This record gives sequence, structure tokens and C-alpha cells, in this order.
Amino acid sequence: MKKSVIQALLLACCGIAATASARQPQNIIFLIGDGMGPAYTTAYRYYMAEETGDVSPTIFDDLLTGMAGTYPDDDTRVTDSAASATALATGRKTYNGAIGIDRDHRHLPSLLSEAKSRGYTTGIVVTSQINHATPASFLAHNESRRNYDAIADDYLGEDGRSPVADLLLGGGTSYFIRPDNNLVKVFQQQGYQYLNQYQGLKQLTIPALGLFAPKGLAPALGSDHPHRLANMTAAALKALDQQAKPYVLMIEASQIDWCGHANDIACAMAEMDDFAHTMKLVKEYVDTREDTLMVATADHSTGGLTLGKHGVYQWKGSALKKVSVMPEQIAQLLKESPEDLENIVQTHTGLTLTAVQRPIFLQALKDPDDTNVEQLAQLVKHLIDEATYTGWTTSGHDAIDVQIFAHGPQAEQFRGFMDNTQIGKKLISLLQPIPAGS
Amino acid sequence: MKKSVIQALLLACCGIAATASARQPQNIIFLIGDGMGPAYTTAYRYYMAEETGDVSPTIFDDLLTGMAGTYPDDDTRVTDSAASATALATGRKTYNGAIGIDRDHRHLPSLLSEAKSRGYTTGIVVTSQINHATPASFLAHNESRRNYDAIADDYLGEDGRSPVADLLLGGGTSYFIRPDNNLVKVFQQQGYQYLNQYQGLKQLTIPALGLFAPKGLAPALGSDHPHRLANMTAAALKALDQQAKPYVLMIEASQIDWCGHANDIACAMAEMDDFAHTMKLVKEYVDTREDTLMVATADHSTGGLTLGKHGVYQWKGSALKKVSVMPEQIAQLLKESPEDLENIVQTHTGLTLTAVQRPIFLQALKDPDDTNVEQLAQLVKHLIDEATYTGWTTSGHDAIDVQIFAHGPQAEQFRGFMDNTQIGKKLISLLQPIPAGS
Repeated sequence: MKKSVIQALLLACCGIAATASARQPQNIIFLIGDGMGPAYTTAYRYYMAEETGDVSPTIFDDLLTGMAGTYPDDDTRVTDSAASATALATGRKTYNGAIGIDRDHRHLPSLLSEAKSRGYTTGIVVTSQINHATPASFLAHNESRRNYDAIADDYLGEDGRSPVADLLLGGGTSYFIRPDNNLVKVFQQQGYQYLNQYQGLKQLTIPALGLFAPKGLAPALGSDHPHRLANMTAAALKALDQQAKPYVLMIEASQIDWCGHANDIACAMAEMDDFAHTMKLVKEYVDTREDTLMVATADHSTGGLTLGKHGVYQWKGSALKKVSVMPEQIAQLLKESPEDLENIVQTHTGLTLTAVQRPIFLQALKDPDDTNVEQLAQLVKHLIDEATYTGWTTSGHDAIDVQIFAHGPQAEQFRGFMDNTQIGKKLISLLQPIPAGS
Repeated sequence: MKKSVIQALLLACCGIAATASARQPQNIIFLIGDGMGPAYTTAYRYYMAEETGDVSPTIFDDLLTGMAGTYPDDDTRVTDSAASATALATGRKTYNGAIGIDRDHRHLPSLLSEAKSRGYTTGIVVTSQINHATPASFLAHNESRRNYDAIADDYLGEDGRSPVADLLLGGGTSYFIRPDNNLVKVFQQQGYQYLNQYQGLKQLTIPALGLFAPKGLAPALGSDHPHRLANMTAAALKALDQQAKPYVLMIEASQIDWCGHANDIACAMAEMDDFAHTMKLVKEYVDTREDTLMVATADHSTGGLTLGKHGVYQWKGSALKKVSVMPEQIAQLLKESPEDLENIVQTHTGLTLTAVQRPIFLQALKDPDDTNVEQLAQLVKHLIDEATYTGWTTSGHDAIDVQIFAHGPQAEQFRGFMDNTQIGKKLISLLQPIPAGS
């Protein structure tokens, strides 16, 4: 064989390239679908298909390389987001609730802190508050994910003026602008651009802190910004490209998990759609260059979601596209106009109440002064689940393995089955020492 | 680089070997875990782990290469075993219930029929009756999987004397020795060895028909032959090696699915253990030679199994190892000795009845003449599910994607996501024309 043919073969199959620059990615984009177990990616494929039409592969299908186990550092087998994010961020197992520390409370260096110390630009883009468990595990150390204020404080670094992240986009003004501490001001004093409106993303520069909601961003379903993760990501990539240094960017579709906890399939599919748009956008970005690796996974699966129920061989995911707003919003509309029950349900879910369901709704709506919106929202979700044959087994997490997706240089390292800690270790091992002034 | 190094690299990474014989597999072993969705392989890992000890990768983890979508040729998204087995066997989608035919009832050639016509030796090893939906889709054509007798008749070929399979091991005397037709005699007249005892496997020769039960084999859990699939497979491989021709062998762990339909996690783990032993044995066989490809997958996932329940972050799979017999057997023991309730439950499940559960069992046992064993078995399963936090959503199937496992020459063709029809198509494409007299 000719040398050029051998080099091409080695590059194509093995990721072994002739030049050092192509062998290792300069930039790493790590995407996490919080709670996105394999039932969610399967569901998204059938959700996207026409009701009676062909089924097409999704971006998740296109990039699948392997699966990961997610058990935490105890005997529970079911991880929370903190332990799993710490595993993904640091390559080390820990207990449920731990943020960037191990069971002995030792601080663990993360992909982002390791990158920062080597001279990379670092960033996070999330749909939760930016100090929620997953991003926190990349940027802070705390014995409990619940210590939101302390975690936010930690984002400024141990000395209060060395933030690990150069770019932070998500929600969280409640934690970053507090009566006791205005962290936004401190970030600004250190040269960070501050944004609190999505329009500001057009002029995003680095370093920057963007907080677009008090806590998590508004849910995708029924939102004016259904693709806010994709939009923040596009702005982040543009800004990162305008600076000279290599970067590591962590992107989290945080609220897939929240929909799972609420056992809300329509909510979950809308969040999956934002994540799919984000994945597509990042893949297209990776395809235009040879220096960026994208790796995606989930921290765990939420809700015990299954696509099948009551012995019926059917899952009517396509019908979920007709659900236009969150079940809580539908419940609020019903409370305000109970006489318009049939019409509101039909308009916002595409579903018609059966003879069994109607009296249950009427009962819940019978006293206008005492209508429980939360209980009504449960009824709406139940209606949707029954119509689509969607099953759930828990308001918490499931132990099922999650998928791994990868594309770009060294993507082949993420093939097959691995423990979630191996994903973190491999990503950290791909970081390069960066020459000063690069 | 030296030529030898390049060859080693190309072989290791790309599966591109220097010689043509290594490039294409001579033998193909296709294993199917019926109903074995990703929750089952995850569960098996934690079931095998010590309760407080380390978690080790399983044979499934070691061989994972991808995942497959399984939807049938209609708008239901949830396949049955017939449609999915037809997809895996023939590379073509069909409707639920169809055996080796498409929606227009056209007969589809299968991996085994194509192999047979090219001169391969062909075989099936299953734990169901051998004319159950999965093996039937490789060997017969019928508009409905329920036509068991007609399917059994079809195993002799269209002319009644050209069986597609040279080796058939599993259950099914009820269908093959019927008052109206003794198919076993016809097979024997055509030179097939007939076995109806496991001991006979020691002298297995090809062609052979082995039927070890009236319908499905006895369940693995509590059986004298908990690894009957592995044992049949070992005998099959030995016999196949004693003949000169290349072969294609389909192996199905049929009863993972049956446990799933029964929402019986202990039953499922025992079947998984037999399948894991079978997978290990086949991998070791593949490792001793360079001419055999093994590919494994599932046809779908059953029961909507999830490892988490009631919002609790725990799945106690290790505890299931203490369940020593099938719940129906425990129920029978309870019916016979209701006074021994606590002891029977403790002995056969390792569990202690709580103050809530005891009265429910006592109620079910209060009239010895009218004790419903099936209802009692449900109580036992519920007890086990509650203690281990095992969730189910259906007595039927789930639409969730299944995994793909591969090892040996051309295993890299089974990486990433694919539709289940692509697995069948790829396997058929790997069949070689065999020179006469080889």
C-alpha cells in the first residue's frame, strides 16, 4: 500500500493521523443531556416522525458511539446529578449530592479547572441556574448540591478573583445577585461582560456572565425561546472563535431531567428538541474544522420513562407535537375558564376527553375558588400519558445505562461501553499543555 | 512505520487484515436476547455485583458496539417478536405477528435460508419451543406467529423434505409429535439425529433435532439446568466444528422476554445469567480462531422494566440472587403450607414480610381450599419488586432501542446506531459463496 493510502486508512479508522495537530483536538465541547436515558432518545425519534410516515434517524442516532454505566460511590446503583456530573467532570466516583469532591471531601480537579490551569478558555452553557448540580461539579467544590449560595460564591475561585469559567450562560440571578452578596458586580469588576437579556447574546464577548432567569430558564415547551440552549450555544461558539486560545465548553440540556422528575413527556420532548438542535449546530461546527471534538452523554435517566403501557403495543409519540404549552399552563387556563374545558384541552393537547376522563376533570373543576392547579396539571399529564401509552415508574432517577455520542478527532476513544468516570478521565487526558501566549 | 506494525494497527483499529480469509468471517453466530432492552443488561451488571462491593463489567459491556431501533412496519412504534425477528432474519420490516413475510405476504429469504442455499450448515439453539416467533422468522413463512403447527410443518421446507436448519435445539414436542403429524419421524427419515434428553447432547452430530420439553424449556430460575442455553450452545459448536462446512448459527435466549411479560425480575436475571454464560462461551470460541463473527442484539425490550421506583434512588439488584425458585413455585409452597408463610418467604426470597405485607399474604392464604396460586405469585413478585425498587409499566413490549454487541472479523460493521433491518442486511451481506465440496 502507498504511504498516503495507509495514512488515510489509519486516520479514517483509527483516528491515527500523520500530524500531531490533527491527532489531538484543540477544542473540546462536552454536552450533557441531564436525565436523558435511552428511552428519551428513542422517544425523540418517534416524536419527530410523522404519525403514519417514515421514521428518520436523529442527530443522536447519527453520533452514537457507546454507552456508560452511572452508579455512584455507594451501594445504591442509582446516581443523582451531582455524583454523576462529578464523575463526568473529574473522572472520579463520589456519593450522591457531592459537588466536585470525593467521599472523603477531597477537592477534585475537573475538566474545566484542568483546562483553565493549562491556559484554555473555559465555558458553560446550561438551561438550569448556572450553579445547579451539573455545571457546579465542573466549577466548584461542596459537600452538598443544595448549598446554592456557597456554590455560586465558589464560582469566583478560592481567592474570590479567579473564576474557573470564562463564559457562563444560563439562569440564576437569585443566587448571583443576593442581598448579602452581588456576585455579578464582582464578575464585572473582573472584566466580565454581564447579560440578562437573550438579545445581548448578539454582542457576546469573553469573559462573560449571562443570567437570563432567576433560577432555571423558562421551559422550552410553550416558550418564546424554545431553542434557547441552541441559541446560547451558537453565540458561545461565535465568541469563542473570536479569541485565540483553545477552549473547553460544557453544554447542558438541564431540564430534560426536570421534565422527567415531573413525569411530563411533552415537556421532555420539547427539551429534547432544543438539545437536538444544539447537537446539530455543534456537529455542523465540528464538521467545518478539524480541531474540535464533541462528546455527548447523559448523567443518568430520569423518571423510569418507558414507551409502552397497559400491555398495548403502541407508543404515540408523534401526537405529542400537538401539546403546545406546559400542563401547568393548561391547568391555569382551565381554572380561569372551567366552562371551556373541552375546547382548552383540545386546543392545547390535540386530545378529546373520553366519557371516563370528563367527569374526573369536572370534579377537579367544580369549585372555582378551590381549584388545585397542580392537581389539574397531573390530570392533564395523565391524559397525555394514557393517550400516548407513556409509562413512568418514579419521580426520581433510574439506574439504566446512558448513551455516549462523539464526533471529531479522538471520537473513537468513546466507542463501546465505559464507566462514566472513564468519560471524564478520557476528556481530561485529551487536554494539551498550551504554550504561553498562544 | 514497519509493515508489520501497520498491519497490526490496521487490524486492531479498522478490522482490515492483511489476508482475505481474515477479512470475511467464515462462520456467523447470531445471538438474540428476546426482550433484552438496555434495562436488562444494566440490571444484570448490578445483580452480579456484591451488595456492597465493586461493580464489574459484564460480557455485554465488553462486547457493546451500538444500538438498534426496532419499530415495525406500521405506525405503532412498538414491535412484537415476530416483526422484529423477521427484520433481524431477513433485513426487511413487516407487521406485528408476521413470520418471514412482508406486509404483502411475500416470502422473505432469511439469513439461514440464504446461508443454506449457499452451502453453509445452519442451526438454531433456543430456550422456547423451536417454532416460536424468533426462530420461526429465520426458518418459516406464515402470516401469523400463532399458527404453531403450520410453522412446525414449514420447518421441513416447502417440499416437505428440505429443512432449512441442519441443527435445531430447544423445546416443542407438542408441535413436532402431533396426533396428525409426527414431524420428528420425518426428520429422522431424512437422517436427523433425534434427542429428547440433555444427556444426548454429548453425542450430538449434525443434522440433529433436539426437543427437550413439550413447549418452552423449564425456566432457568430454580432449574436443574440453569445454563441450558449455554450447554446446548457448547454442544452445537462442538458438533459444528466436526463438519467441514462453514456455518451460521442463531442462538436465542427466548425466555428473558417471558419473564418480562410476567414482570418477574428474578426470573429475568436467571435467564440473563444463562445468556451471559452463552455469550462468554461464544466469545471464548471466537477468540480461539479468526474465522467466526459473533453478533448479538435484542428484538425489543419487554415489560417497561426500570431500575428505580417511588422516587427512591436505589436499585437492590444484588438481593435478587437470594430468590432461589420461580414465584409460582413459592406460591405453590405457600398454598401447601400456609402456616409456614414467614419461613417459606425468607428461605426462597431472602426477604422478611413487613407489617403491611403480612396481612395481605394472610388474606390470600386464609381459605386453603380456595387459594389462588397465580394471585399469590403476583404477591411474591410485588414483594420482590418493592424490596428491590424494580418498576414495570406493561405486560407487553416497550419501544426503547436495544443494544448491539459484536466480536470477531467485521465486528466493526455493527458499530453505532442502526435500524434492526440493517443488522439482518449486513449479516446476509457477509455470507460468502461456498465452493462445492468445501
